[in-house]
Amino acid sequence: MRLFRRGARGQETPLAEIDGTLYDASPVGDFGPAFWAGDGPSRLRTLVAEGALAEVDPQTLSRYGSPVTAPSAVICIGQNYAAHAAESGAEPPQRPIIFLKTPNTVVGPDDEVTIARGSQKTDWEVELGIVIGAPAEYCTSRDEAAACIGGYVLANDLSERTFQLEDSGGQWSKGKCSPGYMPLGPWIATADEFDPSDVRLRSWVNGEPRQDSRTSDMIFDCAEIVRDLSQYMRLEPGDVISTGTPQGVALSGRFPYIGDGDVVEVEIEGLGRQRQQYRQWEETR
Amino acid sequence: MRLFRRGARGQETPLAEIDGTLYDASPVGDFGPAFWAGDGPSRLRTLVAEGALAEVDPQTLSRYGSPVTAPSAVICIGQNYAAHAAESGAEPPQRPIIFLKTPNTVVGPDDEVTIARGSQKTDWEVELGIVIGAPAEYCTSRDEAAACIGGYVLANDLSERTFQLEDSGGQWSKGKCSPGYMPLGPWIATADEFDPSDVRLRSWVNGEPRQDSRTSDMIFDCAEIVRDLSQYMRLEPGDVISTGTPQGVALSGRFPYIGDGDVVEVEIEGLGRQRQQYRQWEETR
Repeated sequence: MRLFRRGARGQETPLAEIDGTLYDASPVGDFGPAFWAGDGPSRLRTLVAEGALAEVDPQTLSRYGSPVTAPSAVICIGQNYAAHAAESGAEPPQRPIIFLKTPNTVVGPDDEVTIARGSQKTDWEVELGIVIGAPAEYCTSRDEAAACIGGYVLANDLSERTFQLEDSGGQWSKGKCSPGYMPLGPWIATADEFDPSDVRLRSWVNGEPRQDSRTSDMIFDCAEIVRDLSQYMRLEPGDVISTGTPQGVALSGRFPYIGDGDVVEVEIEGLGRQRQQYRQWEETR
Repeated sequence: MRLFRRGARGQETPLAEIDGTLYDASPVGDFGPAFWAGDGPSRLRTLVAEGALAEVDPQTLSRYGSPVTAPSAVICIGQNYAAHAAESGAEPPQRPIIFLKTPNTVVGPDDEVTIARGSQKTDWEVELGIVIGAPAEYCTSRDEAAACIGGYVLANDLSERTFQLEDSGGQWSKGKCSPGYMPLGPWIATADEFDPSDVRLRSWVNGEPRQDSRTSDMIFDCAEIVRDLSQYMRLEPGDVISTGTPQGVALSGRFPYIGDGDVVEVEIEGLGRQRQQYRQWEETR
């Protein structure tokens, strides 16, 4: 099953693509924490079997919104690809490194991004996102952790490197929370239909390739990330965990940072593609 | 005005104490983001003037819940008291250092705290919390920032020092997010009735004094914190910013960490007192 939210910002309709047909998922509610806590995908399948969901013609739909809405937390893993850790000047970590983004950074996959005011170093990061389907607290095994995963989503964990590395004494969140700095989507693939273990993930700036790796290069895989994090926090239904980015970002020094008018694309095999145009911040007040 | 939420966990009633009388604030809704976004305190005053709110006898009420509910983000400031920065082995910061806690860490001020599984170093931190009343984004002055503050609340920013300092490559959030590790309350004092600039804040363990400082020792004051953070993120109505802790925590090496059966109390002049009993984690499944 693939889950979409489409429509104008703040007015998105939840949609589910099941066995090749697109349905209006509104009767089950929007794809926030309550959807996942109430096993929304199962309820959708039941309603489809009963003929209770209306089909939707995708041609009639506008903008893609984030398929994740109102997460209680957006958690990110740092330095989870050995080659990216190296280009950042760090040793591979012994355990998952985490930081958080504020949930209001989440926007649609193709929404224009306003570069943060004063930013000189806005950087892309294609990442595989986990969507939590069931509460995860003190998981005792990888299997128990994996069962808490509801689905997967494409993420661009945008960063402002000066804010991240210089303006907050080494704590990264200050460079991760600018408005619009977490495009998600275009869709969530439910966990029963997506194998995250070895898919290709790539990024481009103005059509030129940047990142090109595979999730099999992750130091900590998805089940291990959920197992580990659940020792330190309770992961809630609808939360997002972005699992880290491979080499090929501007921080490496090999490419320029994002500027006014640039177009960034990110893609993960099976999770679609994002395309954002970037605009300089302008005083509008 | 003082804002309370009282009752069993998950069933708290919002209450407002206005000019010495306690009212049921339910007609205006719970004290989440929508309350602040809709200028809840003004609406409450209007309803009181109209005689439209029911008085409540405090003797009939049970448990104190957190007076903050469903914040989109819980942001904390690190090393914001010079003497605490010193006991942590760090230089005073040039700009506010931030990290985030997951919102599901928030509990009532007197709720029993379960020490995180495997924790050897759970530590207290009495802190002054800011409750955001209006969106703050790229504030251009201290005055503009101060106008976005809705109120103030007492916080105990509980930490697990091994998780915080050793298990996440130096990123602190892993030691800040264990369930129940952010007691808030007992009340929010609205910004019109509380001056945060020079109040005493203290903590005790089993009745023995630990921290004892004044907010006038903060390196960055409340208006400056909101102004600075608004350059890096959009602060949302109902968000909490905990403004850092003074010297006198266990991390200093001068006191033992929290153990099974211990009682921690924290207090800020004008914002009340918390009292939590701590229990070792036990396998109950």
